[in-house]
Amino acid sequence: MKLEEIKDPKFLKKMTNEEIEALAKEIREFLIDKVSKTGGHLSSNLGVVELTLMLHKVFDAPKDKIIFDVSHQCYTHKILTGRARDFDKLRCFNGLSGFQKRSESKYDVYEGGHSSTSLSAALGFAVSRDLKKENYNIVAVIGDGSIGNGLCYEALNQIGEEKRKMIIILNDNNMSISKNVGAIHNHLDKIRSKKNYIDAKDKTKKVLNKIPVLGKLIYNIIKIIKGGIKKIYIKNGSIFEDFGLHYYGPINGHDLNELETYLTLAKKQKEPVIIHVITEKGKGYKYAENDTLGLWHGVGPFDKVTGKSLKKDDGKTSWSEVISDSLIRLMTKNLVVITPAMSVGSKLTKIQTLYKNNFIDVGMAEEHALVLASSLGLDGIIPFVSIYSSFMQRGYDEIVHDIARMSSHVIIGVDRCGIVGEDGETHQGVFDVTFLLPIPNIIISAPRNSVEATDLLKTAMNESSPFFIRYSKKKIDYVKEKPKLIEVGSWEQVTDGSQATLITYGDFVEEILPVVNKLKEENISVELVNARFLKPVDTKYLDKIKKKNKKVFIYEETMKIGGLGSYLNTQYNMNGIIYAIEDKFLLQGKRKEILKSLELDSLSIYNKIKEEIKRK
Amino acid sequence: MKLEEIKDPKFLKKMTNEEIEALAKEIREFLIDKVSKTGGHLSSNLGVVELTLMLHKVFDAPKDKIIFDVSHQCYTHKILTGRARDFDKLRCFNGLSGFQKRSESKYDVYEGGHSSTSLSAALGFAVSRDLKKENYNIVAVIGDGSIGNGLCYEALNQIGEEKRKMIIILNDNNMSISKNVGAIHNHLDKIRSKKNYIDAKDKTKKVLNKIPVLGKLIYNIIKIIKGGIKKIYIKNGSIFEDFGLHYYGPINGHDLNELETYLTLAKKQKEPVIIHVITEKGKGYKYAENDTLGLWHGVGPFDKVTGKSLKKDDGKTSWSEVISDSLIRLMTKNLVVITPAMSVGSKLTKIQTLYKNNFIDVGMAEEHALVLASSLGLDGIIPFVSIYSSFMQRGYDEIVHDIARMSSHVIIGVDRCGIVGEDGETHQGVFDVTFLLPIPNIIISAPRNSVEATDLLKTAMNESSPFFIRYSKKKIDYVKEKPKLIEVGSWEQVTDGSQATLITYGDFVEEILPVVNKLKEENISVELVNARFLKPVDTKYLDKIKKKNKKVFIYEETMKIGGLGSYLNTQYNMNGIIYAIEDKFLLQGKRKEILKSLELDSLSIYNKIKEEIKRK
Repeated sequence: MKLEEIKDPKFLKKMTNEEIEALAKEIREFLIDKVSKTGGHLSSNLGVVELTLMLHKVFDAPKDKIIFDVSHQCYTHKILTGRARDFDKLRCFNGLSGFQKRSESKYDVYEGGHSSTSLSAALGFAVSRDLKKENYNIVAVIGDGSIGNGLCYEALNQIGEEKRKMIIILNDNNMSISKNVGAIHNHLDKIRSKKNYIDAKDKTKKVLNKIPVLGKLIYNIIKIIKGGIKKIYIKNGSIFEDFGLHYYGPINGHDLNELETYLTLAKKQKEPVIIHVITEKGKGYKYAENDTLGLWHGVGPFDKVTGKSLKKDDGKTSWSEVISDSLIRLMTKNLVVITPAMSVGSKLTKIQTLYKNNFIDVGMAEEHALVLASSLGLDGIIPFVSIYSSFMQRGYDEIVHDIARMSSHVIIGVDRCGIVGEDGETHQGVFDVTFLLPIPNIIISAPRNSVEATDLLKTAMNESSPFFIRYSKKKIDYVKEKPKLIEVGSWEQVTDGSQATLITYGDFVEEILPVVNKLKEENISVELVNARFLKPVDTKYLDKIKKKNKKVFIYEETMKIGGLGSYLNTQYNMNGIIYAIEDKFLLQGKRKEILKSLELDSLSIYNKIKEEIKRK
Repeated sequence: MKLEEIKDPKFLKKMTNEEIEALAKEIREFLIDKVSKTGGHLSSNLGVVELTLMLHKVFDAPKDKIIFDVSHQCYTHKILTGRARDFDKLRCFNGLSGFQKRSESKYDVYEGGHSSTSLSAALGFAVSRDLKKENYNIVAVIGDGSIGNGLCYEALNQIGEEKRKMIIILNDNNMSISKNVGAIHNHLDKIRSKKNYIDAKDKTKKVLNKIPVLGKLIYNIIKIIKGGIKKIYIKNGSIFEDFGLHYYGPINGHDLNELETYLTLAKKQKEPVIIHVITEKGKGYKYAENDTLGLWHGVGPFDKVTGKSLKKDDGKTSWSEVISDSLIRLMTKNLVVITPAMSVGSKLTKIQTLYKNNFIDVGMAEEHALVLASSLGLDGIIPFVSIYSSFMQRGYDEIVHDIARMSSHVIIGVDRCGIVGEDGETHQGVFDVTFLLPIPNIIISAPRNSVEATDLLKTAMNESSPFFIRYSKKKIDYVKEKPKLIEVGSWEQVTDGSQATLITYGDFVEEILPVVNKLKEENISVELVNARFLKPVDTKYLDKIKKKNKKVFIYEETMKIGGLGSYLNTQYNMNGIIYAIEDKFLLQGKRKEILKSLELDSLSIYNKIKEEIKRK
């Protein structure tokens, strides 16, 4: 079957499960091949091939609404809904999104990116459907990690209460089941083992209808373990029954017949159902199958045969790694590193191994991570919370209410600041500066290079205020020097210059330096300032700049409204010309491509500065 | 006993429970008396008198840490820790806080205000204690409403996993227990009925030690109902055992002996324990006891004998009520009103009664409320989310990621904007403008009066973008006119004036009008502009103002950094003089007092404008 020729998933209805099994194999090969070239989310997509096929066989999308939580696992869904030919530009600038995208297809009814929104969204659709007296199915597919976030519990709490018809697929790829669980499962196993499947299906139904009774007789314990950190003990037909949902499972997510049976059963239910599906992450690709650390979750281009990354070692180190190694260099007894399930992404696994007692992975729970850090900080411990900029948005209130207000000594390493690239608009770290600046009591910093990063970390540990250190997804040169303290609020003159001043921070200090030097060769003399503290700012330095009475440029890779430029202009009357991100969400693409499209790349800035200086 | 003479709670250790019972009575009378004069949280405090007394008898604060979730129920704790004499200035400017406050007492180890933070905070203290190899108890007291917020589940998830010694008191004042629950409870009832309590206590222990076994044999269903909306079915020793906690209860929260028994038992546990305590809200004051709607939760001054409010009816209507009534006037089939447990506070009970199918109370779940609204809005329903400004902080990510990014047609009624008064710094609605302005795709508005409020609501329903309408806690004149559409982004000239322009929005338009008129009498002619749209702004009007080439003043009751003034100055080069809240958290007090202390009251503004105009 030519995957590129698929227009919609209707053809699946007529296929036997044997034929679909062959198709699943094709899709896996396609996914491995395409992702090996573009990079993308591999493991999670390989895990849900059969599940997605059966969802589209059993349900009638787009009338029936299928919502993938986070939705990085929606590649098979994209193939089945006519987008296979777009995979060559997966996650590329102007290419196919790596997530569900309403503008791409009518089959994408809701968009993910951040986790744990699918259940609330599904309930919203159910409320809407019932209000309009319409009749269709709503299916939310959610992972065992995502379901641990508080947002899901808030949703489950209401879903169980309202009892509206909907189906939740718990896509569980990391679980252990104790012996006691097996009662229902063993029953079903026996039934499945019979030769006549049609007959078996009927019997399955009968057995399942008895579950409420069975549930009372048997004693189940199911442990859901995510990354060894999160456990939910599920008894008596699972914790989900406690919430008022019908629970089916656990079932084999790679067994097409089993999937069809349960999806069909769930479809007939008039009340909310949760189907607990066990899938194998990375299924069908040995390197991903054997990956216990999550290294094959999101990948760059790789060699299909060897599994080796195609990225050449350029001797550069990621900011995450610089920070992580700096933490190790500065480790003390009272330093505690906290991550909301981002050990791998933020390169913290070494700390996790070396300093077990000083490391806490709270799971996908940003809010909890920050409150936990708050009381630690108030009690004389130095918590370092490593968190992605866009995910920190989940903890805004906790930053205001629990950390800043009580001025707790929490250090927050804001990872993935600025434009993150291929993950697109949900992951861009372009709001943190704007939402942090108005919060009292906090220090916000951004290192220009690795030496300054280590120094800022040392400084943060030495201070007593909430202290943010923001850095990007970029790779940089890791230079180690003896860590030293930096005066809080002090800026650094990078180059002198008499005709204008350019204030910037973070990566752009190094990126614009060649431009400033080039301008100098052209007899345009611009002072480059490293505004390594965004709050408090260097008022003495600002006075000096003002006295020069020359043009001021402020460049930042963040939203223009409410950024540092706005802060300097308003609070310190700088009257600066601001180069920053205009009032739009930023789509996917390589950082360079996006910067160029925004005219915020160094060449554009070179031209703009030149023009501005000539103008006067 | 003179409550004002209590310095610390040590004396309780020597008291018999009979003596403490008498003290409880005194404290109740004290609370009713004091709160009847100052106003404050009454019901919740009357509910936990015995519980608080026994916490301080059994535990050794401040070495043992007692954390009250939200902490509006900490009045007895304040009395027992030497603060009874401060109750005459409860919730007053420079007076006693209505919440736990670290600066007030060493017994206040953590501060609340927003809900559901206590479990994460308690775990933080436990991690700190264990890291320092110290040995003390940590007790978190949390209500049945608060425990439904996602943050708590994130915390419980980790508390059950980490198994650190700590005690959670689930203060449950609104529950129904099915028959099946009774097995343990009946056992304890029998034991309690014996005359010799000491003996009984020993037996209680023995029985409780058997709970793990008993738990497997009996089938418990406990329903926790909060406001008729949230239900958690607890089976087999409760959902909390599913999380890995030891569960004791439910027990009678007004029975001192029972409380002592269980608190003592819990104290001896080496692992996390949850004690499910049933209390009666408003206990000991008949009006509060009989209140099923929550009207006695937070009250103004009242007559102790009649229970009648001492506030005179001034014919004014709260903004909440204006909005609620406007919703009723504009009600359509596809309008759905959503509240996160704020029906009473936001005056929505009438809608709840009249339009059952168009009303959803999601419980204390701000994040879920917003995602639910997002998918409703995408599906052709018009959701109106009524939410307090400070609590909306919990949903920042959902506003960015789920509502603005997909441009879902959600209307958000931002209640309690600006300075809220007596609740203090955790409740001030002074950040919403600053965190909303940088978000693309949204419309932000603020009506100057009731007519404009209704018109903005009509306009919001007529638009297709996310639409914020912000209003304060103030009471205003409710004038009804035929609702009409307002052009999005249009400002209104309130008075003309040639010497300067004053741009403001919301309440301050009416508040500053007499000042503008007075200035006019003094031949100082100021144009007053009602910036009813904060985003998009009226660029044509801004051009006119710029052409005048006169001084521009921008007044707002929000943080100065990142507010409208900063937006206008930066994006539209207005060069305005901004009067707004400087970079500090705002403590409690009457709004007028706080504004005066900030020199942001109308008299101060009068003087400032006069001075500025004279200067030139």
